[in-house]
Amino acid sequence: MGRVTERRKVIRIRDGAVSSRPDTLVAEEPLEIRLNGRPLAITMRTPGDDFALAAGFLVSEGVLGGQGDVQNIVYCAGATEDGSNTYNVVDVRTSPGVTVPDITLERNVYTTSSCGLCGKASLDAVRTTARWGIADTPPVRVTPELLADLPDRLRAAQRVFDRTGGLHAAALFSEEGALLDVREDVGRHNAVDKLVGRALEGGRLPLSRAILLVSGRASFELAQKAVMAGIPVLAAVSAPSSLAVDLAAETGLTLVGFLRGSSMNVYAGEDRVALHRAVARD
Amino acid sequence: MGRVTERRKVIRIRDGAVSSRPDTLVAEEPLEIRLNGRPLAITMRTPGDDFALAAGFLVSEGVLGGQGDVQNIVYCAGATEDGSNTYNVVDVRTSPGVTVPDITLERNVYTTSSCGLCGKASLDAVRTTARWGIADTPPVRVTPELLADLPDRLRAAQRVFDRTGGLHAAALFSEEGALLDVREDVGRHNAVDKLVGRALEGGRLPLSRAILLVSGRASFELAQKAVMAGIPVLAAVSAPSSLAVDLAAETGLTLVGFLRGSSMNVYAGEDRVALHRAVARD
Repeated sequence: MGRVTERRKVIRIRDGAVSSRPDTLVAEEPLEIRLNGRPLAITMRTPGDDFALAAGFLVSEGVLGGQGDVQNIVYCAGATEDGSNTYNVVDVRTSPGVTVPDITLERNVYTTSSCGLCGKASLDAVRTTARWGIADTPPVRVTPELLADLPDRLRAAQRVFDRTGGLHAAALFSEEGALLDVREDVGRHNAVDKLVGRALEGGRLPLSRAILLVSGRASFELAQKAVMAGIPVLAAVSAPSSLAVDLAAETGLTLVGFLRGSSMNVYAGEDRVALHRAVARD
Repeated sequence: MGRVTERRKVIRIRDGAVSSRPDTLVAEEPLEIRLNGRPLAITMRTPGDDFALAAGFLVSEGVLGGQGDVQNIVYCAGATEDGSNTYNVVDVRTSPGVTVPDITLERNVYTTSSCGLCGKASLDAVRTTARWGIADTPPVRVTPELLADLPDRLRAAQRVFDRTGGLHAAALFSEEGALLDVREDVGRHNAVDKLVGRALEGGRLPLSRAILLVSGRASFELAQKAVMAGIPVLAAVSAPSSLAVDLAAETGLTLVGFLRGSSMNVYAGEDRVALHRAVARD
């Protein structure tokens, strides 16, 4: 496979010093799992062991129980418009006699978020469905110092985490660094959905002057949610995935990762980060 | 709402000292999101802000763009067999004139895993579909010392994390503590699916003598995947959710959380953990 990691240019900020270098990101691509030709699920995964992933998923679904239940597993060619094999669609054929339960969306397949079918196609889909671009005019401009302060303030606002250690958090900040809203949830995508939903209820969409901070990693789906809400800056305490960086670069989203202490990496949209000021302080 | 956290009895092990006390867990329950009466998605979430969660999800889906697009949002009564309102099903009605895109599983809704509709119902569903119980005869028996060693050995086997910081990992260990297999993925459920799928391919299901270790939290879906693969012991470096603990208790799965250094919490299935030996060392 060889796509477990991907290289992207990153701007590193360490105590005010700015440098640019290639960085290694974990690869994230969608995998569509088909069962006897029928699309069943799409999961965002790191490529590799795709047949095992599909088989293991079907064990969890109660479809497969042993080697003998599988006739074969193949990558589907022709899943894209140009008929090429993206290696992002696998079909599991069950052996004759295997009872395939009626797995439907209504019954027991659940969904965490939206995405397109294949990496490139999904980026196009997001652009198509977005109601607004990231229309921050004049552009939001943040200093590394302002960004560096945000994680501690998110942490201070996390009420439930202190008691359970079990929640992800997401917060919206103004471009001046004021905390606007914070939500906690067992699922990080839910925490962001709750923020965006509350903004919709309050008539505050698009969030074109807001910074979104997430307590964990920046996956494709979180970057997508930021874009769909018109948020210009997404900052994450931990690592971004390759597809999150690609989406950010294509949509003009500023993506900051590994925001810890006075250090951070800027993966896309660096025009909104006041780097020169940081350099001047070096 | 008031269900953001739940209390459960937990057995704490700290440097060999064993104590039992109530612990606060983050609540995890499924939420089914319906759009104009049609089931669209099920997400595992922490209860609270459910209407905002549904609205925000639909912003990400490109369905909603502003307050005016929502006619109303309600909890659906009658979603369960006895007709009670579980507060786990919400229906979003769009205003007249709002174009609802054709959102289907095939197009752009993706799925990460399986679960039932409501907390209690889902536990029943898992039991029903499971091919085998946790049939470790004689019961797997592990010492706290053996468990305490596992995270470091998982970490040492994580090749990609060191380069990217962006992966979840899952590993299978024998009851003697030997590392059997390890997988890394941007999605923690994928890492477990890959382990289980490889076991299926190798004819090693059910994994009735194995310990599953995950690098993050123990959610309901990870506990479910362990049960479906016949794994008797699930250990997590971080916190479990309430529903993971409930599932473990009902299925006989041993669930260990906050496995850090020589400390850990046992949330269910404590019969497989050699506590007396730990007490003797205290």
